[in-house]
Amino acid sequence: MNPESINRRQLFVAAGTLAATSALSANAQTPAPTQPRAAPKPDEGKPLAPKDRVGIAIVGIGAYASQQIIPSFAETKYCRLAGFVTGDAAKGRDFANRFGVAEANVFGYDQMAELANRPDIDAVYIITPNGLHREHTEAAAKAGKHVLCEKPIATSPQDAEAMIKACADAKRLLMMGYRCQYEPYNLRAIEICRSGRLGRLVSMTSEHSRTADPSDPRDTWRLNKKLAGGGSLPDIGIYSLNAMRYLTGEEPTEIQASISSPPGDPRFKEVEATVHFTLRFPSGVLANCQSSYDTADVKRGQVFGTDAILTLDPLSDYYRHNLSVSSKPKGSETPVEEKILIPEKNQFALQLDHFAQCVRTGQTPRSPGEEGLRDVRYIEGIYRAAREGKPVKVNG
Amino acid sequence: MNPESINRRQLFVAAGTLAATSALSANAQTPAPTQPRAAPKPDEGKPLAPKDRVGIAIVGIGAYASQQIIPSFAETKYCRLAGFVTGDAAKGRDFANRFGVAEANVFGYDQMAELANRPDIDAVYIITPNGLHREHTEAAAKAGKHVLCEKPIATSPQDAEAMIKACADAKRLLMMGYRCQYEPYNLRAIEICRSGRLGRLVSMTSEHSRTADPSDPRDTWRLNKKLAGGGSLPDIGIYSLNAMRYLTGEEPTEIQASISSPPGDPRFKEVEATVHFTLRFPSGVLANCQSSYDTADVKRGQVFGTDAILTLDPLSDYYRHNLSVSSKPKGSETPVEEKILIPEKNQFALQLDHFAQCVRTGQTPRSPGEEGLRDVRYIEGIYRAAREGKPVKVNG
Amino acid sequence: MNPESINRRQLFVAAGTLAATSALSANAQTPAPTQPRAAPKPDEGKPLAPKDRVGIAIVGIGAYASQQIIPSFAETKYCRLAGFVTGDAAKGRDFANRFGVAEANVFGYDQMAELANRPDIDAVYIITPNGLHREHTEAAAKAGKHVLCEKPIATSPQDAEAMIKACADAKRLLMMGYRCQYEPYNLRAIEICRSGRLGRLVSMTSEHSRTADPSDPRDTWRLNKKLAGGGSLPDIGIYSLNAMRYLTGEEPTEIQASISSPPGDPRFKEVEATVHFTLRFPSGVLANCQSSYDTADVKRGQVFGTDAILTLDPLSDYYRHNLSVSSKPKGSETPVEEKILIPEKNQFALQLDHFAQCVRTGQTPRSPGEEGLRDVRYIEGIYRAAREGKPVKVNG
Amino acid sequence: MNPESINRRQLFVAAGTLAATSALSANAQTPAPTQPRAAPKPDEGKPLAPKDRVGIAIVGIGAYASQQIIPSFAETKYCRLAGFVTGDAAKGRDFANRFGVAEANVFGYDQMAELANRPDIDAVYIITPNGLHREHTEAAAKAGKHVLCEKPIATSPQDAEAMIKACADAKRLLMMGYRCQYEPYNLRAIEICRSGRLGRLVSMTSEHSRTADPSDPRDTWRLNKKLAGGGSLPDIGIYSLNAMRYLTGEEPTEIQASISSPPGDPRFKEVEATVHFTLRFPSGVLANCQSSYDTADVKRGQVFGTDAILTLDPLSDYYRHNLSVSSKPKGSETPVEEKILIPEKNQFALQLDHFAQCVRTGQTPRSPGEEGLRDVRYIEGIYRAAREGKPVKVNG
Repeated sequence: MNPESINRRQLFVAAGTLAATSALSANAQTPAPTQPRAAPKPDEGKPLAPKDRVGIAIVGIGAYASQQIIPSFAETKYCRLAGFVTGDAAKGRDFANRFGVAEANVFGYDQMAELANRPDIDAVYIITPNGLHREHTEAAAKAGKHVLCEKPIATSPQDAEAMIKACADAKRLLMMGYRCQYEPYNLRAIEICRSGRLGRLVSMTSEHSRTADPSDPRDTWRLNKKLAGGGSLPDIGIYSLNAMRYLTGEEPTEIQASISSPPGDPRFKEVEATVHFTLRFPSGVLANCQSSYDTADVKRGQVFGTDAILTLDPLSDYYRHNLSVSSKPKGSETPVEEKILIPEKNQFALQLDHFAQCVRTGQTPRSPGEEGLRDVRYIEGIYRAAREGKPVKVNG
Repeated sequence: MNPESINRRQLFVAAGTLAATSALSANAQTPAPTQPRAAPKPDEGKPLAPKDRVGIAIVGIGAYASQQIIPSFAETKYCRLAGFVTGDAAKGRDFANRFGVAEANVFGYDQMAELANRPDIDAVYIITPNGLHREHTEAAAKAGKHVLCEKPIATSPQDAEAMIKACADAKRLLMMGYRCQYEPYNLRAIEICRSGRLGRLVSMTSEHSRTADPSDPRDTWRLNKKLAGGGSLPDIGIYSLNAMRYLTGEEPTEIQASISSPPGDPRFKEVEATVHFTLRFPSGVLANCQSSYDTADVKRGQVFGTDAILTLDPLSDYYRHNLSVSSKPKGSETPVEEKILIPEKNQFALQLDHFAQCVRTGQTPRSPGEEGLRDVRYIEGIYRAAREGKPVKVNG
Repeated sequence: MNPESINRRQLFVAAGTLAATSALSANAQTPAPTQPRAAPKPDEGKPLAPKDRVGIAIVGIGAYASQQIIPSFAETKYCRLAGFVTGDAAKGRDFANRFGVAEANVFGYDQMAELANRPDIDAVYIITPNGLHREHTEAAAKAGKHVLCEKPIATSPQDAEAMIKACADAKRLLMMGYRCQYEPYNLRAIEICRSGRLGRLVSMTSEHSRTADPSDPRDTWRLNKKLAGGGSLPDIGIYSLNAMRYLTGEEPTEIQASISSPPGDPRFKEVEATVHFTLRFPSGVLANCQSSYDTADVKRGQVFGTDAILTLDPLSDYYRHNLSVSSKPKGSETPVEEKILIPEKNQFALQLDHFAQCVRTGQTPRSPGEEGLRDVRYIEGIYRAAREGKPVKVNG
Repeated sequence: MNPESINRRQLFVAAGTLAATSALSANAQTPAPTQPRAAPKPDEGKPLAPKDRVGIAIVGIGAYASQQIIPSFAETKYCRLAGFVTGDAAKGRDFANRFGVAEANVFGYDQMAELANRPDIDAVYIITPNGLHREHTEAAAKAGKHVLCEKPIATSPQDAEAMIKACADAKRLLMMGYRCQYEPYNLRAIEICRSGRLGRLVSMTSEHSRTADPSDPRDTWRLNKKLAGGGSLPDIGIYSLNAMRYLTGEEPTEIQASISSPPGDPRFKEVEATVHFTLRFPSGVLANCQSSYDTADVKRGQVFGTDAILTLDPLSDYYRHNLSVSSKPKGSETPVEEKILIPEKNQFALQLDHFAQCVRTGQTPRSPGEEGLRDVRYIEGIYRAAREGKPVKVNG
């Protein structure tokens, strides 16, 4: 990006961030949206030349970064892969060579302050274990970089608040990597929920389960309480939690929860295996959610309306989402199912481009840091409800 | 049935009933099964001649009786349609003529004592509103008839206990009309859950919803608290509740629940619309259940095991159940689904025949009155958990 | 059956048979229906007492007879299992004892003339290898018994014509065991095709394949040309052929065909493995059919109309048929599928009862011998088209 | 592209084209592949800088060009949208402005010779009505441009041969736009067919139908014999035809066919509505195909092997292909279905990139002009078989 475009962009960013900040300071509690958010319009801009794109350094280059995020840069219109921050210098150099990044843009986690000297790096995408998100966000913000952070934002509301403050203080954006909020099938599901086609929304369910495997390096840190902040809940249950919110467009007011882990299973010494929780929303909608590290795979969401049922199964996969609306016409014994078929898009690329557009224009991201803070507060509420054995009132 | 066969049968009945009774009196709480019940073997007996069959009078001849139960007698091997008890004498005579029953075997609800004089009526099947089950069961037992009673057994545990006592005192059987426990797809699902094929059971979900329609005579009494005992929960939520028990073979120990009804909807002045509840079982299994009178139709159950997921959808329809087991083989990205295809059988006929065989042999029914009592206690627990806003410990 | 009922019935039968016979003699070619036949109404009669039922002896007691047909008598309303004709006298006596038939009613194939002396046997159901159907039908007719005959009627049109003549001469009914024509999902499919809901019918496809297994006694005779009359085509391809006719309600006018068998496979020394054939109907509908003894299982039919597509998959299984109608509403990108859900019924019992009702009332069966003759003529046409390498005009 | 890269590329191209040409001249008949072609490996190259990409001008800018092809350039790695050839100069200028192409690179159909003067245009993609493909290909080749041509290659084998010769004479590539051959689900299906997982291939079916709408400008020319060359067959039936070839990896040797069009329908004055055809392959595989402009939508292919059945439905859509393999394990009554889930990719972009790589390296395209010629010969054979009412031997 050339200096001019940076200046113009930073002006927008400053304005956007200030607005968000003042909204925050006016109300100690993150304000709930006053009305359900509509599904966003697709972006139709043209690809920018590399020099005009937002340069993004990846912080943490594990499997998700290398298999999903880095290859997706090729499908972005506004993003340029610009650097790596890693604890493994050799791997960082190797990635630099493989993916066309200057070796000078490879840093150790303890060198993040040096990012400040790299004008070709505008932002970072933090893909480190949950417990490190705060430290890496604060370092990036201090170095003047915008931050896109993987979910969950942090392992406590306090850390999340500190991250939001660090970015606001540095006048830099903080966006959450809630990829489903950029994925076309989920966006269409939001539209259908808002459209009245299901009738009034009454009840919802969502399940996210998989088998945690301690022999897989990707799962090692996920079973460590300090690094992960919890078990299946903050890792995959958060997809159910977040989906219940964006599908209703509402914030829950009450949570009930139960936790269960198989006794003696070494995987679950520190973190929980299975959580069942129920959310109550202001409109009266109830949502039953399940999250588990201990069953065969499921990634589903359903919305039961007075007129029809929407099924998104899977809801949160990397591709091949299935969306349908079914109902039994009055007087008929036979159900009718409409399969909603729309083109799959690379959700990682769409999310990266939304982030880049927010950086360029100062627009508030669809999933700002405050969105991540809310979920961490709800996760805390779920754990408290299960621990204390009673429903917990929440005010996200 | 000739007198001899009655005598032999009644001998068996007495023995069976006494055994059940003593078990009950030894323990104020209905004893939980010590180990998961296996799925029953199919009955392979030959059809009996009409005179040897168990004569059954229908108490309450509404839509369910006339459309499902009465036609199913033609597919039974051990049952004979033998009479009607109804508040509408003209309709009773009409049914007698249409279905080949002597007009003398049509009674008013206030004439049930006269059943005692009809040796060709061995038993009654009670299909009246829930709030009348106790009165009709007590009348039938007093008249010396065995009782098959529609679910839920009653609108309170106290009524259920009185019904069990009335039948035990009269040395007559009391069986619950839990038709799914006699339906082949549900029985196969039980077998699969016991077989280890799903791995260890971890989590379950079940949803039962439909739109209550006050303009439909079948729904009028269902929206009346006194007659129905509650809203969607005792009517259709009980399918989820009962299924969670027979699929695990366990009794729940803790219940959480939330209730929601649309404000101002005249249908829900007396009874609730939607209930979400979570059951915890001794093995650690958690079950999320949903019950609603306020959404499009669903009748599903799922069991999430460590190795595979069983789906029964619908679980509780009158026909066309779908049963599948799906899993993602280790190392594969592609799910494999086995559709379990077995012949549909008339579950109403199978249930009637099981009842008749129990009457003939004195065998304890698969779904005795005590099974109905447990569910009513759990339903009471669900309402209390929702009302008091805290988990309730139960001991069914 | 008492003598009076026999007399009354035979009167009807005589009238019915004469009518059919005169129609036949007036036209050397079996007359094609002048307009598409409607789907029949379900029979709603009450079960008869055993003495009033039509007594049926089973000729040939292999797997299909013992596993499907004999058990289905329990679900009939008008039929009584009345005897066995078998080459294995010991098996015959065993069956007599197992299924409650007098041992005196067990006969060898060479004793069929003795059937004439059994007034409690009104009819036979012939379930022997195809090449024996003529001999057994002629013997039964000569003994004064009505005949229900498994498909295909015979291994040549000449044999089929002789069978029709033998029954007409004896004033006895000849009905084909085309079970799909009595199965509720197929009947509903016929209704939908006639209703206009698919628009104008344009094109059809049907596939029937399975793997022939010479080590299975059920398949041994099927690979013998003399006994089977051909390979997959007369055995399972006939389901496709017959379905194309009853779904359109039309008779084909032209046939093209190709045959393929894997060289050197000992199963296919005498009979063909795979046949692909195309039928042209007077309305312009074309139907692509496949029949094979050499692939994994398929039993499907589809009807492509100008407005919607009907899928029956399986079309010809013993149970669990799936019927759906799908279309893409104008201007929509998303297909809508309606799953037609109706109760499964025992098609074997329905077919037996239709036969019994025709015997009792003299009504012409829905699938008379002439229906079987047509298919054998078409099968001959298919073989000729494949052999001569050119389309064959047919006039069924 | 800079001059150097052009030179290097042209060298490769010359070599590749000559090889193909000599193969052609050695055998008047296009030689059939000696062994089934394997599925290609995915391309893993990095995106090139715009100047190094192959510049492609679009000839014909109707709906398919503007909605599918032009937007897909954004997802290519080796292609640059470089010009338009159109009969509507205003539309051409508008496209130039909308899609970032110099107005100087917009030409009329009669100006294609001027392409020779544009070194930034390396190739053309011809998306005009079928009857114009020859003229436009010859003009492009004469101007020294490589040609990617939409299917069908032409409306007669003679035209196709002239096109192949024109490109060979000009030492330029001719590739067919058989997009399914570049689409990942089809490639996976090819792999599975080759892998032995289905057992030996025995039988195939494929259906391609939709409703032709003369009020839609996209369909106007398709109902004109001169422009389209035929009706549904060369337009969509070609997908079935081509798929049967790439799924088996074999060339058909015999064709049977039937044609049907609704009498009096003005849409079908010049071209046919519905074609059913059967292909025989050297290995003995038979394929039943259907093609229609007169039914609801279908785009399916199935392969029946001795062990399992592969279903690709849709096979030829723009996105959302469904691929599954089903079988009934020996001794089991219940079918098992594996759904093959792989990421969707933009098949238009993949095809463009394959073309560009062939241009750059001189490699023979996966779908060369000769592949198009074969299909046009088979189409001619299908029409002849239907017209003459007898099977036609083919030697593609």
